[in-house]
Amino acid sequence: MGTGRLEAFTDGVMAIIITIMVLEIKTPHEATPAALLASLPILLTYLLSFVNVGIFWNNHHHMLHAADTVDGAALWANLFLLFWMSLVPFVIRWLDETGFQPLPTAAYGAVLAMASVGYLLLEWALVACNGPQSKLAVAVGHDRKALVSLALYAAGIALAFVHPWIAIAIYVGVSFAWFLPDRRIETPRR
Amino acid sequence: MGTGRLEAFTDGVMAIIITIMVLEIKTPHEATPAALLASLPILLTYLLSFVNVGIFWNNHHHMLHAADTVDGAALWANLFLLFWMSLVPFVIRWLDETGFQPLPTAAYGAVLAMASVGYLLLEWALVACNGPQSKLAVAVGHDRKALVSLALYAAGIALAFVHPWIAIAIYVGVSFAWFLPDRRIETPRR
Amino acid sequence: MGTGRLEAFTDGVMAIIITIMVLEIKTPHEATPAALLASLPILLTYLLSFVNVGIFWNNHHHMLHAADTVDGAALWANLFLLFWMSLVPFVIRWLDETGFQPLPTAAYGAVLAMASVGYLLLEWALVACNGPQSKLAVAVGHDRKALVSLALYAAGIALAFVHPWIAIAIYVGVSFAWFLPDRRIETPRR
Amino acid sequence: MGTGRLEAFTDGVMAIIITIMVLEIKTPHEATPAALLASLPILLTYLLSFVNVGIFWNNHHHMLHAADTVDGAALWANLFLLFWMSLVPFVIRWLDETGFQPLPTAAYGAVLAMASVGYLLLEWALVACNGPQSKLAVAVGHDRKALVSLALYAAGIALAFVHPWIAIAIYVGVSFAWFLPDRRIETPRR
Repeated sequence: MGTGRLEAFTDGVMAIIITIMVLEIKTPHEATPAALLASLPILLTYLLSFVNVGIFWNNHHHMLHAADTVDGAALWANLFLLFWMSLVPFVIRWLDETGFQPLPTAAYGAVLAMASVGYLLLEWALVACNGPQSKLAVAVGHDRKALVSLALYAAGIALAFVHPWIAIAIYVGVSFAWFLPDRRIETPRR
Repeated sequence: MGTGRLEAFTDGVMAIIITIMVLEIKTPHEATPAALLASLPILLTYLLSFVNVGIFWNNHHHMLHAADTVDGAALWANLFLLFWMSLVPFVIRWLDETGFQPLPTAAYGAVLAMASVGYLLLEWALVACNGPQSKLAVAVGHDRKALVSLALYAAGIALAFVHPWIAIAIYVGVSFAWFLPDRRIETPRR
Repeated sequence: MGTGRLEAFTDGVMAIIITIMVLEIKTPHEATPAALLASLPILLTYLLSFVNVGIFWNNHHHMLHAADTVDGAALWANLFLLFWMSLVPFVIRWLDETGFQPLPTAAYGAVLAMASVGYLLLEWALVACNGPQSKLAVAVGHDRKALVSLALYAAGIALAFVHPWIAIAIYVGVSFAWFLPDRRIETPRR
Repeated sequence: MGTGRLEAFTDGVMAIIITIMVLEIKTPHEATPAALLASLPILLTYLLSFVNVGIFWNNHHHMLHAADTVDGAALWANLFLLFWMSLVPFVIRWLDETGFQPLPTAAYGAVLAMASVGYLLLEWALVACNGPQSKLAVAVGHDRKALVSLALYAAGIALAFVHPWIAIAIYVGVSFAWFLPDRRIETPRR
């Protein structure tokens, strides 16, 4: 099987996730600067989530570009990735409604971490079906970066119970680490 | 007519259904483990629905891959399938709001059963327009599995009135039966 | 310009319209047959709208299939069509919230009528840019059927103020007239 | 990298934005002409937003049509554009809920202005990676029109605090300036 329809379906789901997140966010209660300022944390969380979905999409784009075929295992690994990404709007709404308390902040990190696991599963499934000598396998390598990110997310989840903003800082840091190199080396992997 | 635009439209609708289901789910009322636990049943129903849409998409992908042409009857059979799938978010919301009572649980099974009928109609329409010797007709065969699934859904709908969790167990069982072979024989049909 | 991206964008918008309509519908208040029955009118309106979007999509599919090129006028005629179709979920919600009163029922017909106007504008724009001898121009002809439909919608809008169900009956009738031939002659136009 | 998947993802996001805006709009409170009239301002704002997304999509379509390749910078410039466009439904909802007060009206202009900045960034990124002699670079030129539009949006944002309708009039004017030439010269740029 070719990669065309997998890419199309994934594009559709990611396009929807990235867009409907904004439906989950409550507007400022009044038309005042103070009310807009009070909405700033959730708007920044939306920005962070948008960037994260963008990073996943970018890397997905590059990875599938290097792959020639997909099999059933890759289809389900991809659905696993999309399942966890689809929960991002859900945890954002929870964060917004409860005002950035420890548990929802940890849940936000857990969802991003599980999406990263899904990305790794997809990577392994694609390498398995394209072969160890394939362009894809060479480009992906050992993907130490993804494993380090997972460890950082785990730390963030734990530290959310010390203070939510420590966790958020870690999530932002991981995103930066993925965002910046993408622009330089043009062979991003996640 | 080729199959391209039918696939694209179906991908779009399924991508939206699989994603907006999460909009229908109420977040936990508080930022506590107890509140998260109380949301577990509906989150698991979301997971079950996600897997079901994923199974339909996977099998649709394989079936259309084997088809060369579509006609008007196939377009409408496909819309019949999509109509019932589009009701999945609606019954999930009803389940969530009423707390897993018999009638919404039966309705959930009825919607999945009608979607399966739609899948069979699409299968028959495609076999009719691709011919009995086509690659598709050979791959599909008599599709006894789909008919057995329908009978099980009927049983689940009836047993929902004995106890909702019996019905849910049957729905989960049918999903497993479709999920597992897909990974082994790589020629899934539904 | 080729027709590819116009088709892709239209598929996306129609896929979303056909799917999000269900988000607008309130679930039955209770888990009882009586409550489900009370939701029947709005569910049937959803079915009618689903069929109508399906008819538009089907005919759009056939029309673009016969076209070779699109120009700026066709892009905007297509957006005009999509604008009115995007209001279908809005009027459905209004119908649901006010309980099928005359004005929203008339508005529902007006939205379908304007979408039909958009379809005719797109038809004319495509004939103009593909030429009077093109496959498309021959297939489309004078499209008397579309003009008769428009007249019937106008009648339905007026009669909604006599009784909403007269209007609904006319809308259903027009949909049937478009739905049935599609399956027989395989060269549907709207 | 080719432009195919960037176009597909952008089509998906823009299709969703253009469609879900209508979900944000409250229906008239009653089934009366007076209530419908009271909804007119927000419906016209929806129309204005629909036209603006349509203009962005049209110009994006033309620009990508002229481009041969995209790189990482173009992918992120495109995501920057989509981020600001995704906030359009959010500010429309805010406008609707607060009744067209100065701050949300200014915010609406700011979102459109930032989307225009995103469009310019994408234009520059594409020119940079396709080369100064490319078909794209010649077609785009200096894009004075986009810079003048930005200045007008800035004026609109400031004048929203004098009176919201002055700002709205400027936004409508800018949209007209983009809408009309598209139909005449067939080489729109934004």
